[in-house]
Amino acid sequence: MKIPTGNVFADIPAALPAELFTPLLDAPNVRIERIVSLGHASPPGFWYDQPQAEWVIVLLGAAAILFEGEASPRTLRRGDYLHIPAHAKHRVAWTEADAPTVWLAVHHR
Amino acid sequence: MKIPTGNVFADIPAALPAELFTPLLDAPNVRIERIVSLGHASPPGFWYDQPQAEWVIVLLGAAAILFEGEASPRTLRRGDYLHIPAHAKHRVAWTEADAPTVWLAVHHR
Repeated sequence: MKIPTGNVFADIPAALPAELFTPLLDAPNVRIERIVSLGHASPPGFWYDQPQAEWVIVLLGAAAILFEGEASPRTLRRGDYLHIPAHAKHRVAWTEADAPTVWLAVHHR
Repeated sequence: MKIPTGNVFADIPAALPAELFTPLLDAPNVRIERIVSLGHASPPGFWYDQPQAEWVIVLLGAAAILFEGEASPRTLRRGDYLHIPAHAKHRVAWTEADAPTVWLAVHHR
């Protein structure tokens, strides 16, 4: 039987000029990806506006997400998750600068 | 804006007479749950036979899943994930006995 497997903490490059997106599952209604950040943030003035909802968890490191209309970003540390409704505008305010942040994102209809 | 949040490592009871299943997201096509095990395994002769596919990752601890027809179970340690197709019969062969194992399961159509 073909069982796709892997480890979410494997193959993290030492240098990360840009955030690294790795697809882990691509199914009709759900897409799971790993994101590795290293001090990255969304460009100034940029907002994600996604047609699908996204459940996201930080597995390593730390990050903060700012939602449009909120006064301050929500900090996510190891194990913290949140659910981003479709079209909820948000941006990555910051990610830890000196060590990788590993996210797991579950995009779904 | 209502943004559901939490931490997957929070509220782990010291004693676990049975595995603990905690729903984290319940959407039309995807259901995410946390599972906490402590030495638990599927009952002898029991096989999961699920109508939906399941992507599962071990975030803490260790466990092993046996698929029907395979000679030995697949061990999962921190960060290891695998995808269980719908109706792929499987059972939990073992989970770590002396510390909790935390799984994240993404059931999807």
